[in-house]
Amino acid sequence: MKYTAVTNQIIQALCNLVGPTNIISNPADLGKYAVDEMPRYDPHLPGVVVKPHSTAIVSAILHFANQHRIPVTPRGAGTGLSGGAVPIYGGILLSTERMNRILEIDEANFTTEVEPGVTLDQIQQAVEAKGLYYPLYPGEKTATIGGNIAANAGGMRAVKYGVTRHFVLGIEAVLPSGEVIHSGGKFVKCSTGYDLTQILIGSEGTLAIITRAILKLMALPDKREVLFIPFNSLADAIGAVPAILREGILPIGIEFMEDDIVRMVRESANIDLPLPGYPAYLIIILEGHTEEEVLNTAKRVGAICQRYGAVDTYIPAGERARRRLLEAREKFYPTIKSAGLMELADIVVPRSCIADFIARVKEISLKHDLPIIAYGHAGDGNVHLHPFGRGIDRAEWNARLKSALHDLYQAGASFGGAASGEHGIGYDKKAYLSTTVDKATLEAMKAIKHTFDPNNIMNPGKIFDLD
Amino acid sequence: MKYTAVTNQIIQALCNLVGPTNIISNPADLGKYAVDEMPRYDPHLPGVVVKPHSTAIVSAILHFANQHRIPVTPRGAGTGLSGGAVPIYGGILLSTERMNRILEIDEANFTTEVEPGVTLDQIQQAVEAKGLYYPLYPGEKTATIGGNIAANAGGMRAVKYGVTRHFVLGIEAVLPSGEVIHSGGKFVKCSTGYDLTQILIGSEGTLAIITRAILKLMALPDKREVLFIPFNSLADAIGAVPAILREGILPIGIEFMEDDIVRMVRESANIDLPLPGYPAYLIIILEGHTEEEVLNTAKRVGAICQRYGAVDTYIPAGERARRRLLEAREKFYPTIKSAGLMELADIVVPRSCIADFIARVKEISLKHDLPIIAYGHAGDGNVHLHPFGRGIDRAEWNARLKSALHDLYQAGASFGGAASGEHGIGYDKKAYLSTTVDKATLEAMKAIKHTFDPNNIMNPGKIFDLD
Repeated sequence: MKYTAVTNQIIQALCNLVGPTNIISNPADLGKYAVDEMPRYDPHLPGVVVKPHSTAIVSAILHFANQHRIPVTPRGAGTGLSGGAVPIYGGILLSTERMNRILEIDEANFTTEVEPGVTLDQIQQAVEAKGLYYPLYPGEKTATIGGNIAANAGGMRAVKYGVTRHFVLGIEAVLPSGEVIHSGGKFVKCSTGYDLTQILIGSEGTLAIITRAILKLMALPDKREVLFIPFNSLADAIGAVPAILREGILPIGIEFMEDDIVRMVRESANIDLPLPGYPAYLIIILEGHTEEEVLNTAKRVGAICQRYGAVDTYIPAGERARRRLLEAREKFYPTIKSAGLMELADIVVPRSCIADFIARVKEISLKHDLPIIAYGHAGDGNVHLHPFGRGIDRAEWNARLKSALHDLYQAGASFGGAASGEHGIGYDKKAYLSTTVDKATLEAMKAIKHTFDPNNIMNPGKIFDLD
Repeated sequence: MKYTAVTNQIIQALCNLVGPTNIISNPADLGKYAVDEMPRYDPHLPGVVVKPHSTAIVSAILHFANQHRIPVTPRGAGTGLSGGAVPIYGGILLSTERMNRILEIDEANFTTEVEPGVTLDQIQQAVEAKGLYYPLYPGEKTATIGGNIAANAGGMRAVKYGVTRHFVLGIEAVLPSGEVIHSGGKFVKCSTGYDLTQILIGSEGTLAIITRAILKLMALPDKREVLFIPFNSLADAIGAVPAILREGILPIGIEFMEDDIVRMVRESANIDLPLPGYPAYLIIILEGHTEEEVLNTAKRVGAICQRYGAVDTYIPAGERARRRLLEAREKFYPTIKSAGLMELADIVVPRSCIADFIARVKEISLKHDLPIIAYGHAGDGNVHLHPFGRGIDRAEWNARLKSALHDLYQAGASFGGAASGEHGIGYDKKAYLSTTVDKATLEAMKAIKHTFDPNNIMNPGKIFDLD
């Protein structure tokens, strides 16, 4: 790929488009845009950062970049975990941070219309203040909705609510040509041509820049119950999941973990989790509209788990204890991240295969002499795998990791899984995309990319490399 | 467009691909493939009908057709309402009727894998026998799942469950080149490249032929309650809907209707509906896993509706009365269809706009001196509009209809709606697609079409005409 480098002349032209207060070109100030939340990558500096505050300006920037063959990397809060927002070819980094308005909360239609730079936290606070609910929780409240949409973010509530794809009813987006498209609206039903909303969701900023989104809302269920349930084996824990769903119970989260991560969180994060020393656990989160409803359901869930081999059931007494339990779960990633060299894979497999898949992960861990911690979403089959590089140097780590990752993705594929459940491919997982996507399918994806973005200016080098 | 006509030589070549028992070429036997369920169109005979029974044969047919520039129209049960399965350019009609196997029901993962020619009825019976549930009900049980996916079929349960798009987890499909692609799997979460499943859903057979689909299932809720609630105005009825949803109640259906269609069904279909003579009604359908749960919810719904102006509430006593009420709702379309010249539009508008939209519909009806019956899905904003041609000749009907439809689609657009909520554009609504899809968006759709199907052999003349 041949791209035009960002010169002073280009910076001046962009400055004319976005205004001098909405552009960063001083190299000393570009560093924060060179990485995302994954600690493993080398930073990649953009040539210039622009912060448009309207669709018209986004359109003008893309039109300009397309004419001059300058790469454009869209970026929200930079909380991604696969390098999706890292400008690996330099060029223009288009930050959505100034497009951060909640344009409407429509209480009759249960929708909200937002700009891409609004954070998940802002959306949830605003709609909850009106008794409404955007139920998805991909785990990082400071992420922007634009980033969530680009990655098709999931999170632990997918078992009940699905993923971002299921809550975006419509979009406005700017194509690389500068053309503005509109798709969907304030309705869940639409059979009116190809669904461009769905094509853009999960496309990681490689096709267009989303400038507005209409999100579906629900009524806010304000009662919650959490269960922490130890099992004698991960297989027992995973086996209980379909039994719970069979009874028509839809928890908002069913999380599994093994003793290793529970111990680590207990030690490093100094969080005292109950019922220590069992091989595996489920955290099950229920929500509803009455206290009675959730408590009854919690009791039923406890009883089902007992039938499937649960050793005990802990139901926190009161909101504080409940919150502490959920905080412990949220400490998994930061605890691991602070422990040294590590990688994060988020392979998804059919839910029933989790225990077998993790047995395979343990064989791979032994084979490559690399500790791997596994935990994740028992309700939806999404497994977070953290290979660790404790006590080895970076070169050795890189070598072992590469071969271990190869085996992990192959294992995921052998269970009928997909390379990424919720983080996206970005540039970190490009090498593994083809483990779960066959050649004809990959070619179809590349053809779509070429159609939207013939000059390959939109977030180049992400998801796949073009030939 | 220049297509190759179906000659005896072509028929012979296709016969070699599918076998002599899987092909129809006798003109006398082609008639049933020349129409769908919309009575208004002129029939269009295919040149030949092929009935492949495997993905490999579908691939061979498409490869052959693509090489020889022969149009291919995919067809399931032919129950569509917009001409999507009608071979308007002749050529090959590819019937999926022999690809009718349920390949798997996976009770641990709550999924079923099916071929496209399986009917909705077959799927629902098979999964319900195992206590599982495919909750969508687009209104026609004899439709195939392939047709449902092609049209992104909706139906009355969208308010709770969404539409076909939300229950297809993965697909296998054959591209016009004959290449076979695979997307998704037995999981709800996936951020692994562009979602080709979602691109194909709702594409009306214009991009590829789906040869397998993995559907999401749920636990079967076997308790049901139905309410029939009269109001003094449609505005009152529509106003009650957000209040119900606000309380965290998600009925599986909220249907609205006015006195005209209720009277018509009472007279023509000889079904005695209760509480006659009110201007508007809601039918609200609830389901749950216990008798107590649905009955309590029904009482709450009744109380909410009273607060919003309901005149009365009828809850049928027992399963027979309940079924009679739902049967009356299902008689709406056949009753209207048997009444003479008629058209069917299925515009979707934001749910809160239904009453205002229908007020506009009544103005349009007066303006063009054309009776229009309106009813539909109050839970999701999808309005079925039936202009009628009673007592006028076909030429007059065509003239009035054309101008009335123009106004109806413009009205839908002015409320932020879309041209089709669930039936698809087919060839009947091509002229109106641009009322709710702007030029840049339409061009993006056409570019996708060109990418998948450069020779325009897949169901040509549907959704839009290529330039």
